[in-house]
Amino acid sequence: MGPQATLTDRELHSLDAHWRALNYLAAGQIYLTANPLLAEPLRPEHIKPRLLGHWGTCPGLNLVYTHLNRVISARDLDAVCVWGPGHGGPAVFAGAWLEGTYGELYPDVGRDLAGMARLFRQFSTPGGVPSHAAPQLPGSFHEGGELGYSLAHAYGAALDNPGLVVVCVVGDGEAETGALAASWHADKFLDPVYDGAVLPVLHLNGYKIANPAVLARLPEGELDELLRGYGHEPLYVTAAAGEDPERTHHDMAAALDVALDRIAAFQQAAREGGGARRRPHWPLLVLRTPKGWTGPAEVAGVPVEGTWRAHQVPLARVREDPGRLRQLERWLRSYRPDELFGADGRPRPEVLACVPAGDRRLGANPHANGGRLLRELPLPDLAGLAVAVDKPGTRLHEPTRVLGGMLRQVMADTAERRDFRLVGPDETASNRLQDVYAVTDKAWQAETVETDEHLGPHGRVMEVLSEHLCQGWLEGYLLTGRHGLFSSYEAFADIVASMASQHVKWVQTARTVPWRAPIAALNYLLTSHVWRQDHNGFSHQNPGFVDHILNKDPQTVRVYLPPDANTLLCVADHVLRTRDAVNVVVAGKQPCFDWLGLEQARDHCARGLGIWEWAGTERPDGEPEVVLACAGDVPTQEALAAASVLRTRLPELAVRVVNIVDMAKLLPRQEHPHGLTDREFDAVFTRDRPVIFAYHGYPWLIHRLTYRRAVHPRIHVRGYREMGTTTTPFDMVVRNDLDRYRLVMDVLDRVPGLAVRAAGLRQSMEDMRHRHHAWIRQHGEDMPEVAEWSWPG
Amino acid sequence: MGPQATLTDRELHSLDAHWRALNYLAAGQIYLTANPLLAEPLRPEHIKPRLLGHWGTCPGLNLVYTHLNRVISARDLDAVCVWGPGHGGPAVFAGAWLEGTYGELYPDVGRDLAGMARLFRQFSTPGGVPSHAAPQLPGSFHEGGELGYSLAHAYGAALDNPGLVVVCVVGDGEAETGALAASWHADKFLDPVYDGAVLPVLHLNGYKIANPAVLARLPEGELDELLRGYGHEPLYVTAAAGEDPERTHHDMAAALDVALDRIAAFQQAAREGGGARRRPHWPLLVLRTPKGWTGPAEVAGVPVEGTWRAHQVPLARVREDPGRLRQLERWLRSYRPDELFGADGRPRPEVLACVPAGDRRLGANPHANGGRLLRELPLPDLAGLAVAVDKPGTRLHEPTRVLGGMLRQVMADTAERRDFRLVGPDETASNRLQDVYAVTDKAWQAETVETDEHLGPHGRVMEVLSEHLCQGWLEGYLLTGRHGLFSSYEAFADIVASMASQHVKWVQTARTVPWRAPIAALNYLLTSHVWRQDHNGFSHQNPGFVDHILNKDPQTVRVYLPPDANTLLCVADHVLRTRDAVNVVVAGKQPCFDWLGLEQARDHCARGLGIWEWAGTERPDGEPEVVLACAGDVPTQEALAAASVLRTRLPELAVRVVNIVDMAKLLPRQEHPHGLTDREFDAVFTRDRPVIFAYHGYPWLIHRLTYRRAVHPRIHVRGYREMGTTTTPFDMVVRNDLDRYRLVMDVLDRVPGLAVRAAGLRQSMEDMRHRHHAWIRQHGEDMPEVAEWSWPG
Repeated sequence: MGPQATLTDRELHSLDAHWRALNYLAAGQIYLTANPLLAEPLRPEHIKPRLLGHWGTCPGLNLVYTHLNRVISARDLDAVCVWGPGHGGPAVFAGAWLEGTYGELYPDVGRDLAGMARLFRQFSTPGGVPSHAAPQLPGSFHEGGELGYSLAHAYGAALDNPGLVVVCVVGDGEAETGALAASWHADKFLDPVYDGAVLPVLHLNGYKIANPAVLARLPEGELDELLRGYGHEPLYVTAAAGEDPERTHHDMAAALDVALDRIAAFQQAAREGGGARRRPHWPLLVLRTPKGWTGPAEVAGVPVEGTWRAHQVPLARVREDPGRLRQLERWLRSYRPDELFGADGRPRPEVLACVPAGDRRLGANPHANGGRLLRELPLPDLAGLAVAVDKPGTRLHEPTRVLGGMLRQVMADTAERRDFRLVGPDETASNRLQDVYAVTDKAWQAETVETDEHLGPHGRVMEVLSEHLCQGWLEGYLLTGRHGLFSSYEAFADIVASMASQHVKWVQTARTVPWRAPIAALNYLLTSHVWRQDHNGFSHQNPGFVDHILNKDPQTVRVYLPPDANTLLCVADHVLRTRDAVNVVVAGKQPCFDWLGLEQARDHCARGLGIWEWAGTERPDGEPEVVLACAGDVPTQEALAAASVLRTRLPELAVRVVNIVDMAKLLPRQEHPHGLTDREFDAVFTRDRPVIFAYHGYPWLIHRLTYRRAVHPRIHVRGYREMGTTTTPFDMVVRNDLDRYRLVMDVLDRVPGLAVRAAGLRQSMEDMRHRHHAWIRQHGEDMPEVAEWSWPG
Repeated sequence: MGPQATLTDRELHSLDAHWRALNYLAAGQIYLTANPLLAEPLRPEHIKPRLLGHWGTCPGLNLVYTHLNRVISARDLDAVCVWGPGHGGPAVFAGAWLEGTYGELYPDVGRDLAGMARLFRQFSTPGGVPSHAAPQLPGSFHEGGELGYSLAHAYGAALDNPGLVVVCVVGDGEAETGALAASWHADKFLDPVYDGAVLPVLHLNGYKIANPAVLARLPEGELDELLRGYGHEPLYVTAAAGEDPERTHHDMAAALDVALDRIAAFQQAAREGGGARRRPHWPLLVLRTPKGWTGPAEVAGVPVEGTWRAHQVPLARVREDPGRLRQLERWLRSYRPDELFGADGRPRPEVLACVPAGDRRLGANPHANGGRLLRELPLPDLAGLAVAVDKPGTRLHEPTRVLGGMLRQVMADTAERRDFRLVGPDETASNRLQDVYAVTDKAWQAETVETDEHLGPHGRVMEVLSEHLCQGWLEGYLLTGRHGLFSSYEAFADIVASMASQHVKWVQTARTVPWRAPIAALNYLLTSHVWRQDHNGFSHQNPGFVDHILNKDPQTVRVYLPPDANTLLCVADHVLRTRDAVNVVVAGKQPCFDWLGLEQARDHCARGLGIWEWAGTERPDGEPEVVLACAGDVPTQEALAAASVLRTRLPELAVRVVNIVDMAKLLPRQEHPHGLTDREFDAVFTRDRPVIFAYHGYPWLIHRLTYRRAVHPRIHVRGYREMGTTTTPFDMVVRNDLDRYRLVMDVLDRVPGLAVRAAGLRQSMEDMRHRHHAWIRQHGEDMPEVAEWSWPG
């Protein structure tokens, strides 16, 4: 932008005052524990004992906060802002305090001298606030701790919010991350008709922690090509150290006006229709400011402002060194705090002239506290969707395909409301959920050709081959008060392990923030799972996401392994109703025996685990001699096959079959809200009988969940032990010792005296395993008896 | 490229024959189980019972393979190729077979009819090869299963290999992933003097699994801007369905010649010096080919070639449907196999005319079997680097800073050889390893300004704020026969959890491939760990990477938690010598007590765990009454403080202190090669005494490792339980019940009768915890007695 007299002198004066106030408040948070308004000369005891925080990015963020206030007020704009740069905490907490939202939500940190002192003291101190945007920050739905997710969150928030502008400050450090780099292409999925707009502000302040940022060190032309290549029209605002900020205020105001005019025009054109659809080249701001702008230019003769040395605390040892203390005071007074605040700490009216009112304030916009906007999701009656089960184990269905019917109905029932989205990395159809395409398309704004199918500008299925973008979209969508489901190949969920962990932390922390309303659960459907990667092989075999998630906050995380189609429906119905939760559902897409009718499935899922009397040989009057437990569709099939062998060959053995859907049931009650009491657990698993547990994933997870139970020393678990390869379904279970024959042998080996008594059966099980090996070597496929096996219910 | 007569007719004929042969061999792998050369008309029994595989990407990959052969031969080029597109297995296995390398390494799959039949049969069948590039593939150092890592691997391979050209085919699907998107900026780190070149080939074949690819659906100008924005000069080769491939052969040959000429010129200019350094705009090929090119144009009236329907098996049900069988036969015969192969299955000479000889063949280049090139890393004598320890617990050092001294020496000693790199996401200095900058710079080819420090074009420290790129660089570097270390904040290692898992799978599989030579270990240094995120807070607290890695192949994974500076040195010395391993080392960067002198540290680390007699109160003649175990620097400090309290206040109690460095020692011997036998384990931990275990991470990991041990029911673990926040170091341990006072109480509660006998001590421990809470509320920092505590050794 060239210099333009966009602003009146009065506006300029007021904006600059607001910005100086934010800069003062940001520096104050890093340094001061007392004397917040410099009523007296600074003394060492006014300085925090430990100087923590990150000054470098703050003045630039403050500039954005100030200028967003102007355009929101001027245009009555419905806008939120995602603060991407790490450690911008002092800036954004200052912004919320100055506009008054902070004090409204935290009355002891009000907009007066005592509140200012508390604002300063709480920053980066025990029991206080962290050094980046976080759940405690009014107006934020994004945590600035782990970098890279800002832009994906912003796009997720904009989806299905046609009146909303989501400004997103992208740090030049975080721009180097994979998640952020992938997110630039999210503009090919944003619908100018039904979605809102995203306005990225690429904040180039030159340095990360200790290194220059790549994007800040490209020749200007190369950066411009890159951003145009991402599909944007870049608008540039550049500030230089030492220069009067007047020109920057004018440039920033002009650039924001151009950007918002463009956005409005694109949306109007698209919404009024007529003419060919053409993807807008949405505007983007490139804001180049010196790192640590307006802070100390030099310290002890070494340049600080504009260098990586301004990243954290630009002026250290101020308590110890009187010269440094004076330098800090000069710096703080350079903002002329007495012009900005009264002696009572209240901001003067001209400082607040640009601040919008009520819910238009960035800290008060309800979209950033999405639970406030959340509506109950309309869920269909499962009766019309469930599969009929006359007899367990006689018919086969693909569980996820049955779920697809349910999701189709949810999509249809939310067609007007548009508050449900399905996201996935190019696998919705591969995961057999394609029924949804009968009622909605895959969102797509890039070019199309005649042979494309199910692509549409207004679709609500989001497919992109970036798990990060899928996860980020969905998080942003949920955090702004909507519903959704992420379907993925099980193995590749670990790609977003860290994002998932951060989301759990957000939910866990938000639960302690009284003014945050609960949001809809983040639901994962992990399918195309470890046991059925017949040709993809070892690289696609990884059931570890469940282990990862179960390490996190027990109030938030849940894991479900429905064993068939109807239980998957019931689990889906449940998880889509939950709040402030992260639910992981693992289910197969391959044909799988139906075990339970809908009513049985409802009961079973409501209990989370249960004894399947019809599958065992237990006598009603006695305790079982052995428990065969199973969790997951393939282990359930193998366990039930083993039970069937035992029933036929050793009818006198009292076998109890237990199926687990809700894995947290295994945990002690005091460790997870779903956990069973010891009494409940013992009633199902006994206290002293051998338990053979066929589990879907890594076997030691079961030990980690059950080690406090009385029966634990007798639990023997079979599961996936990284014995993976390209092979048939049955060979996979044999390689990992999870097959029916091995499970029968495990029973024989663990029930006292049985191995001897049933030596013939044991031998025939060994023989079957040999037969399997020989058969597969010769035929390259599974033996007919396992391929066509049915449970003789 | 416009049409140019780059090739003579004879060359053209030969290249086309080679390409047709690859296409034939690729299709054959998907379909045929017998009659490999169509010696007789196709019958259903010649067709595989289950049709698996991905045809869509193959013809394009084949074109690259064919044309790389030409330029390698013509220029005597030292080149390898990374095959990024997922599921290109049939193409790349065909390439290796046709050039002869496959048969040399797998004599039963030789270049004859029987070998061809086996090549076809083994594809995607049990015990065979997977559907993508994998360790079994000669010439590959990249697994094509999980997408997104190709370009990072390619750059890693090119580092410090000045004579090497690494061609990297990037699929348009994988280009959407975060890891790949971030990798485009790797060109800002590639040194034209000491590094080789990377030639990306962006393969736009239009579709992923079920969706168009974003990059394939950009307007041409926008794509061009994007690629120029990434710093490249794009060269375009476009093929259309149905068109004679002659023009494409000419274009491809011309484009490759231009690209390789440019590369040579850039390198020559940089290496001959003179003139200002200017970052080359390295060439990049955009290869646009129809998906499933040369396959069936239509099936049952529906377009297939050029659509997503060609992604997997373009022609299904060929066994069942005679019409389809005929269509398959017509398709296969369209490659004129009888012109390409003799009746004995041997390729005719003109087919092989372009194939380079010996180690120049893509499948034989030694860089792709890096262990063959690996040299022992020169490691310094630790005596000159270790810290002096007269008495345990009296002096403090920052362990990673001490390690920095060692790494500096390694950097210095490899200055000429250039086979060691340090990678990290902008944290080398933050992690206190900055001593290395005394001998090498941070690699940097983008713009610089005067205030920059330690940036240089030839540096061997790689810093970029993308964990994916760091990991990918290092993997590529190791897989091509060099050494390195990845240092990261502990919390953010999970960002590459899935990459790490795939690397373990590669190593595990490669170990079973007899011709693959062992490579250097992938070493992680996880620091800035969970207990010391005083101001970063909750978002930076995550010790779960250890749990993740310990789920993987026990032959490959190891986890070390050295408790002080000298043990960190010994562990580093060890892991840098290991092969075919993934080592995770967790160590602090904050001042930490020195416990062991160098010789003690060597012994302790060699054993992996041990009793610290000097810290306990055990009598030489008896068994201890309680075991205080600890793993990790902070837990060790707390456990030793607890031991010191017990020693002073309950001198008659026989306490054994055990420190664990090598976590796998806790596993049973049969489950991990480092595991202790039960006898060894019991000798350290006893069979029946209470064990209070202070652990660095999630406490249940210890249960998962020890559940088979006799003493397990008596093991009580304290660790991190997601009770995280912004707070002081001691408050963190208190919040998670890992503090010295809690550990003392745990001892009192678990040694029979002691709680009553030592009720006063128990109360004073409670009092200390109360005092802590009150103090921190008032002062915002830790009590002096914990901040300044020293072990009264």
